[in-house]
Amino acid sequence: MRGMIGVLGGMGPLATADFMGKVIALTPAERDQDHVPLIVHSVPQVPDRSASILEGTESPLPAMLQGLRRLLDTGAECIAVPCNSAHYWYDDLAGESTVPVLHIVDAVGGALARRGVGDGPVGLLATAGAVFGGIYQARLGKHGYECVVPEDRDQEDLVTHGIGLVKAGRLEDARAPLEAAADKLRQQGVRMVVLGCTEIPLVLNDGNNYLDSTEALAERCVEWYSDRVRRPE
Amino acid sequence: MRGMIGVLGGMGPLATADFMGKVIALTPAERDQDHVPLIVHSVPQVPDRSASILEGTESPLPAMLQGLRRLLDTGAECIAVPCNSAHYWYDDLAGESTVPVLHIVDAVGGALARRGVGDGPVGLLATAGAVFGGIYQARLGKHGYECVVPEDRDQEDLVTHGIGLVKAGRLEDARAPLEAAADKLRQQGVRMVVLGCTEIPLVLNDGNNYLDSTEALAERCVEWYSDRVRRPE
Repeated sequence: MRGMIGVLGGMGPLATADFMGKVIALTPAERDQDHVPLIVHSVPQVPDRSASILEGTESPLPAMLQGLRRLLDTGAECIAVPCNSAHYWYDDLAGESTVPVLHIVDAVGGALARRGVGDGPVGLLATAGAVFGGIYQARLGKHGYECVVPEDRDQEDLVTHGIGLVKAGRLEDARAPLEAAADKLRQQGVRMVVLGCTEIPLVLNDGNNYLDSTEALAERCVEWYSDRVRRPE
Repeated sequence: MRGMIGVLGGMGPLATADFMGKVIALTPAERDQDHVPLIVHSVPQVPDRSASILEGTESPLPAMLQGLRRLLDTGAECIAVPCNSAHYWYDDLAGESTVPVLHIVDAVGGALARRGVGDGPVGLLATAGAVFGGIYQARLGKHGYECVVPEDRDQEDLVTHGIGLVKAGRLEDARAPLEAAADKLRQQGVRMVVLGCTEIPLVLNDGNNYLDSTEALAERCVEWYSDRVRRPE
């Protein structure tokens, strides 16, 4: 299928469904057939990304590579990974892929610029693995943004705790700790708070106050598909 | 991946994302890894099912078979199709599949019984193709239920019209005509109104008044997966 995008998902599954919903909502469509063709590998039996980065537990890479190969075998022409922490292994995935792998941080950089957020400091709410693994800092720096991250204790007590509640389906309980972490970043003068974990936008969904990395990646997919179908074979 | 369910979706795409969300919500899970592994073919470039049944326009079967083969190639151990009208071609799909294809009407029959709706008349809101193609009537009859369908004019002006609005993303506009159709069925004494089109539960989502076929299929998938992982290899 021309322009079919392979989605390496399941990390977590609810974030994957949310990502699909955002691709659909962002697509100008009047009927089913106008929508972006997706093949979605939502197989959550992948070792924990954050624990692997932080504690050296079992690597999720073999499971992710297996999913990637399944998607490539179906004829996917581009790959999106709606999980920020998984981008710690971006180079391994891109190296194995025969088609482009969209980078979620580049998608966030593009989305920040489109929303009129110029250069300067932006806050980052993400898993401890994504924060300490430096997934955002250097790559967002290339787009002209400096990342401000929570203090270690806030990361643990507010962000990691909140993400765990989302993964357990306790969305309402997750709101207060995640909002508190965002407020602390704003007190440091950031121009926008980036939700750099695809679980967090399930709870914090005010587009004026937050830049949702899931939505940014969905925007990038719609743009990629639109370019692809316009291009001659 | 053991127990991976292939989802032949995209008909429409929003219904597919809704189906995934319902599988997740119905799964008893504390962490990502407890969730049902899904590989989701959400490729909406499939000829219109209802028009093909009613008017003999291009058949969606070749596109559906291509999707089915892609899912089987990935190692899916069971297939679910979150589109009622697509079940008009159920025998063709099941005949081509090397693994079980869950039937959405059987899932609805099971769900009606679990909700305490005994034998008797139930109302059906579905596409004109599903209604006139008889997808529900005989098969639900085997479960002990008699289907009451809208009058032709209501089918056209209320149900088909409402489904079209959902597919165009106009969810709020779709509510009034769909509710009016349901009310007319209730006036005929049905014991429950079955939402036999996966677009309709995106708008009518009161579980006490409606039996949602998307949710019924999601329940069946969770049950199938639970049985599968308990079974020795």
